[in-house]
Amino acid sequence: MALQGNMVIGQSGGPTAVINQSLVGAVLAARKHADITGILGAKHGIAGIMNEDFIDLTTQSEEELEILATTPAAGLGSVRLKPGKAECERVFEVFKKNDVRYFFYVCGNDSAETAHIIAEMAKEADYDFCTIHIPKTIDNDLKVTDHCPGYASAARFVALAFMGDDRDNAALAGIKINIVMGRDAGFLTAASALARQCDGDGPHLIYVPERTFDVAQFQADVKATVAKYGRCLVAVSEGISNADGEPVMTTGERDSHGNLQLSGSGALGDFLSGKVKEAYAGESVRVRADTFGYLQRSFPTIISPIDAQEARMVGEHGVNHAVATGEPGSVAIRRLSSQPYASECFVTPLSTVAREATELKDEYINAEGNDVTQDWIDYVSPLVGELPKMGKLF
Amino acid sequence: MALQGNMVIGQSGGPTAVINQSLVGAVLAARKHADITGILGAKHGIAGIMNEDFIDLTTQSEEELEILATTPAAGLGSVRLKPGKAECERVFEVFKKNDVRYFFYVCGNDSAETAHIIAEMAKEADYDFCTIHIPKTIDNDLKVTDHCPGYASAARFVALAFMGDDRDNAALAGIKINIVMGRDAGFLTAASALARQCDGDGPHLIYVPERTFDVAQFQADVKATVAKYGRCLVAVSEGISNADGEPVMTTGERDSHGNLQLSGSGALGDFLSGKVKEAYAGESVRVRADTFGYLQRSFPTIISPIDAQEARMVGEHGVNHAVATGEPGSVAIRRLSSQPYASECFVTPLSTVAREATELKDEYINAEGNDVTQDWIDYVSPLVGELPKMGKLF
Repeated sequence: MALQGNMVIGQSGGPTAVINQSLVGAVLAARKHADITGILGAKHGIAGIMNEDFIDLTTQSEEELEILATTPAAGLGSVRLKPGKAECERVFEVFKKNDVRYFFYVCGNDSAETAHIIAEMAKEADYDFCTIHIPKTIDNDLKVTDHCPGYASAARFVALAFMGDDRDNAALAGIKINIVMGRDAGFLTAASALARQCDGDGPHLIYVPERTFDVAQFQADVKATVAKYGRCLVAVSEGISNADGEPVMTTGERDSHGNLQLSGSGALGDFLSGKVKEAYAGESVRVRADTFGYLQRSFPTIISPIDAQEARMVGEHGVNHAVATGEPGSVAIRRLSSQPYASECFVTPLSTVAREATELKDEYINAEGNDVTQDWIDYVSPLVGELPKMGKLF
Repeated sequence: MALQGNMVIGQSGGPTAVINQSLVGAVLAARKHADITGILGAKHGIAGIMNEDFIDLTTQSEEELEILATTPAAGLGSVRLKPGKAECERVFEVFKKNDVRYFFYVCGNDSAETAHIIAEMAKEADYDFCTIHIPKTIDNDLKVTDHCPGYASAARFVALAFMGDDRDNAALAGIKINIVMGRDAGFLTAASALARQCDGDGPHLIYVPERTFDVAQFQADVKATVAKYGRCLVAVSEGISNADGEPVMTTGERDSHGNLQLSGSGALGDFLSGKVKEAYAGESVRVRADTFGYLQRSFPTIISPIDAQEARMVGEHGVNHAVATGEPGSVAIRRLSSQPYASECFVTPLSTVAREATELKDEYINAEGNDVTQDWIDYVSPLVGELPKMGKLF
C-alpha cells in the first residue's frame, strides 16, 4: 500500500531553464494520486522547510503552472546551504509534525546529499517516508544518469552564442576568448563545438577542466590557429586549473559548499586576454574576452525541446515511482537511442548520486587536450536539438 | 533616366543580428533593376573596395540569401577603419575604374561619414554616382531616424537576459550587476526595463551614460533597493562616466575611430562589484557582475520580428530610391504609429547622419538618473516585440 500523507517539494542550487518543468511535472503527477493528501512547496528549499515556509501547490490552475514551467530559475526560490546534522534534524522534525511522507528535492549532487541524509534519518527513526532526488544541473556532472535535465538548454545557449560569435569573429578578425561555466566538468564548454558547421568555423580551441591548463601551450595554440585561419575563437571553461590543480583564476570567494567563486566576474577572461597580448608582444592584435556568466543558465526562450520534455518527465517519474514503491532514490535518464533520440527514466539509489560528481569521458577530449572528439558530438547533438544554419558568402 | 552601371555594397562596424537582412534586401531589390548591371559585394567594407576584393552577388539562389538574412554579423565581412583622404581617393578610383555608379554602405554613423566623403568627391569630379547609407547599429544612436535597424534585436536580447536573470536573482537573493553595451547612449541598457512584468521585478536600477555616474550614489541606491526588496538587480551601461566625463572603467585600448575599448573585458563589472562590497563593509553579501559583451549583438534566433522586417526594408528602400532618383542620402525610419506599430522609410541627406550621434531623450530618464520613464517603455516596447510571460508562485 502506498504511503499516505503530505508531500514537500523544494528546489536547490543554481537555476536552469527547465527546473520548473520538473516542479510542474511532479506537482501535476502528485495531484492525480489520492495518497498524496497535500502538496507543499518549500520556499528556498531546505531553508523554507526549517521555517515551515510553504506554498500550497494544489490551488494553481494548470495554465498558471504551464507558464511557470517555461520560466527559468527556481519558481519556489532556491538556496545555497549545506545543512549540518542539526539542520537535517530540524527538517525531519518539520516533516513529522506536518505528516510529510514524501519529499522531492530538485537539485544537483550537493543538495542530493541533504536528501540522502534525511532519508537515512527517516529509516533510522522507522518513519515511513520516501525521499526522491529529482536531478537538475547545467553542469551535467551527476553520476549514473546519461545526462542531466537543465544541461541541454544551457548547452544550447552556449552553442548558439558561439555560432553568432564565430560569425562576428569571422567578419572582424581577431582573437576572441569566451569563458563558459563548469567548475570541475567541461560539458558546457565542450558544447561550444556544436557551433561548427563548416571547416574553419570556430571555436578553434576548447579547454576543459579535465585537462591541465598550460598557459604557454595555450599561447602557442592561439598563435598556431591565427597563423592558419587569420583569427581564433576559443572556448575556455571557468574551472580550468594549472599543473598544481589550482584554478587559473578566481576571486577567492567561497560558497557554503566550499566552492570557489568562478562566475560573476570577468577575471579569468581578462587574465587570458592579457596572456594572449603578451604572446604577441609588440604586434597589434585585437583580443577580446567575454564571460558568458549567469545568462547561460537562465535565458528565457533558449530551451532545448528534449531538455524541457525530460525535465518534466523526471519530475513525473519521481512522484509516480514514490507512490508506487515508497523506495527512496534519485531519478536518472537512460538513453535508449541517439538516432532517433529516445530515453527513459529509472531510479538509482541516492548513495550513487549524492555528493559525487562526474566529468567528461576521456574519449570525448582530443589527444592535445584542446578540442573535443566526434564521439562527443554524437553524444551531445541530440540533446541540444536542431540548430539554425548559418549562411555564408565566403 | 536612372544611372546605369555597377553597384557596390559593403558592411562596416560591429555586427547586428539583422545586418544581413539589409544586405539581402538591397541585393534582391537590385536584381530587379536592369540599370544595375553588376552587383559587387565588397569584402570587409572599405578595405575590400581598396583592394578590389569583390564577391559577385548575382549568383546566389534566393534560398541561400534567405539563410544569410537570418544569420547574425556581416556576411560580407566587416572593417573598423577610418579612411583618410588618400583611402577615399583610392575607393573613388576603384569605383570609376569598375564603372560603379551605386554605392550602398550598411553601417553606423562613423562609416556613414566615409560614404559622405565619397559622395562629395563624386560630385566634385562630376562623376554620375549615387551613395546610399543603409543604417545599422545596435546602439540606436543615429540621428534623424526614429530608431536604427539592429537595435531592437539587441534590445530583445537584453530584455530577455534580464527577465531570466531577475528570476535567478529572486530565487537566490543577492546583488547582481549586468553591464550592457552602449558607449555614449543608454538605449540598450534602458531596454532592460522591458524585463519588468510585476511590482518588484528587476532591474531595480538602470544607469545610462547620459547621466553622470556617482559611485557613492550608486552604493546608496543599491543599499536602499536591498532594504526594500531583499535583493537588487542593476543594469549599467558600459559607457558610464564620472563628473569629469571620464569613463568609470576602461582597458585603455582605442580603436581606429579613437573610441576606448569598453567591451570584451569584465573590468567595469568587477570594479562595481567591489564598490558594492565596500558599501557593505563587514557584512556578508552576495555580489555578482556579468558583462553581456559581444553576445548581445549577434545571438542567433534572438531577433525582433519588426527589426528583421525593417532591416530588410531599409536595404530595399535604399536601392529603389537610388535607382529612382540618383540622389545620395541615408535611409531613415519614420514611425507612423505605435499602437498598432507602423513605420515607413524615407531618405535624409548624408550630412544629417554622418559622424554625429544621438542619445536618450531627457524624458526617457527619471529625475534621479537611475531608471527610465513610461515614455521610454512606450517608445521601445513595439520595437522589441512580444516577450514571454514569466510565471511566479510568490
